[in-house]
Amino acid sequence: MKKIKVVQFGLGPIGIESLKLAAEQTWLEVIGGVDIDPAKTGKTLGELTGVAALGTASVYPSLGALFAAVGRPDVVLHTAGSSAAASFSQMKPALELGISVASTCEELIFPALKTPDLAKEYDALCQRSGARIAGTGVNPGFVMDILPICLTGVSREVKSIYVERVVNASTRRQPLQAKIGSGQDPDDFRRKFAAGQAGHAGFQQSVALLAHSMGWKLDEIRETCEPVVASSRVVTKFFDVAPGRSLGIHQKCIGISGGETKIKLDLQMYLDASLPHDAIVIKGRPDLNLVLNGGVAGDDATVAALINIVPRLLAAVPGVRLMTELAVPAWRNPVA
Amino acid sequence: MKKIKVVQFGLGPIGIESLKLAAEQTWLEVIGGVDIDPAKTGKTLGELTGVAALGTASVYPSLGALFAAVGRPDVVLHTAGSSAAASFSQMKPALELGISVASTCEELIFPALKTPDLAKEYDALCQRSGARIAGTGVNPGFVMDILPICLTGVSREVKSIYVERVVNASTRRQPLQAKIGSGQDPDDFRRKFAAGQAGHAGFQQSVALLAHSMGWKLDEIRETCEPVVASSRVVTKFFDVAPGRSLGIHQKCIGISGGETKIKLDLQMYLDASLPHDAIVIKGRPDLNLVLNGGVAGDDATVAALINIVPRLLAAVPGVRLMTELAVPAWRNPVA
Repeated sequence: MKKIKVVQFGLGPIGIESLKLAAEQTWLEVIGGVDIDPAKTGKTLGELTGVAALGTASVYPSLGALFAAVGRPDVVLHTAGSSAAASFSQMKPALELGISVASTCEELIFPALKTPDLAKEYDALCQRSGARIAGTGVNPGFVMDILPICLTGVSREVKSIYVERVVNASTRRQPLQAKIGSGQDPDDFRRKFAAGQAGHAGFQQSVALLAHSMGWKLDEIRETCEPVVASSRVVTKFFDVAPGRSLGIHQKCIGISGGETKIKLDLQMYLDASLPHDAIVIKGRPDLNLVLNGGVAGDDATVAALINIVPRLLAAVPGVRLMTELAVPAWRNPVA
Repeated sequence: MKKIKVVQFGLGPIGIESLKLAAEQTWLEVIGGVDIDPAKTGKTLGELTGVAALGTASVYPSLGALFAAVGRPDVVLHTAGSSAAASFSQMKPALELGISVASTCEELIFPALKTPDLAKEYDALCQRSGARIAGTGVNPGFVMDILPICLTGVSREVKSIYVERVVNASTRRQPLQAKIGSGQDPDDFRRKFAAGQAGHAGFQQSVALLAHSMGWKLDEIRETCEPVVASSRVVTKFFDVAPGRSLGIHQKCIGISGGETKIKLDLQMYLDASLPHDAIVIKGRPDLNLVLNGGVAGDDATVAALINIVPRLLAAVPGVRLMTELAVPAWRNPVA
């Protein structure tokens, strides 16, 4: 079977993990990477990842430079930010050539929420070129949206969906610990969240995707976020948090339809959180009550979602695709 | 929007429930039913179901008679047995005309296991005519196959899959209580299982679908079934079981690949079972541990799976389709 050629766009911690996982796949061929950081440009992927098998592929400053040097890939793996508008724009050179894009961009989980016109414009572009673009991930992209949606496949009635997720951020990467405000002054964090500069990205997109899939027209999405404040000192590999400072977030997002709260998402993500888990309660017929003990842990799962989506993405109809429009998520065996 | 025209083939308890649920869907139009039972033929679906909205549609002895009387549907809802060979043959008149089929036939969850040649032949037929046929349900079709597969969408490695399901059969319909051997002599039941005349159907198909999706080539599928014997009298709406007689089944099925047991399914389905639940343990990276408290209960879920698959089936590529090739399962809102 012909290997699927991929390019990694964005070489931060998630991009590097994505590359390492891609390198293990006998059905993928990594032909290069793209990053705007001049410290990375020109290096080989082998140098950046420590994976010998990636040794010969290089980092380019743009997709155009990469295409000119090593030709076109089949798929771009995109791990470079949360904004749908920025991601569409970054991926335009690929999409115009019919090259599909799998992305961890949170807003791409449901791009019509914040950028409806862009979503339409790029959907038309993809239909012309034959490309697909879809966002994926663990949250958003799985635990709080795709997994509850999948559960409702056996529902004859769904009245409401509640999902809660408790993540022990101590086990996660530095950028995530920073993003949730670890060590910050709680009031500073509140101000940053109010200004849209902090908190978990993609929460509203999960609510919008759930509502879209359930056929519920939303009157309103309401999101709140409060810092979780340390009562005693907490030390991680990356942060030393004094009592009274922030350990992370307790973020909530609800979707209201016809005056009723149909969707409630509740996320606690903070350092040293006890009993990490994911739980889903669907009220309807039948009632469904799911617990993932320990939760879906870690960045492993994020890059797994990104690699696993590739075959399903390529099998989909061209366009801006939602995960609900692709085949059931599944592990892609690296050697089969 | 144009309604999707459906026909109900098979008017046993599940077929009647399917019709009742179909009648609630504003996006479906039920144009008739088919059953070989002369006691049902000629009656209206309103008489059989007690649902006024179905009043005018009639029961025909064959698909051909139905097509001649009321024209072609878009989809046949098929609830008439566990055998893939029989189901293909029953559905041939529809598939030849490009009419798609959603079925609760257990073997259709993975028809290539028992009838590989037929599966190929009907796949070719469907590709010519534009029809799709797929099996769905709760088990097989969801709890022990599609749900664990969906979970592995966030796996970077899957080493093994274990699923257990404990069903309190006291809450289920009479034919199911009978099928699991309620009230029978345990040795009689063992003989019947050995002769392929008893036990839960579709178990091996779940194992085969899991292996197919994980890219594991199976050396062997091994299935065992033991009766669960009553230690004291158990009374249900349909059975009165004396001590020493059967309450139901404890059925196991394993899939072995490369000499290793990669898949283990464990099903306990008996009268008065305590703590009904479904549980999934995936060993890999990350480990995943899921519990559905109370399980996915009842026949409601089976007919829900059947109705909910219709839009996904019609969006799929023509052919004999697996549920893993269709979009993520999701509730179809009856009024949206």
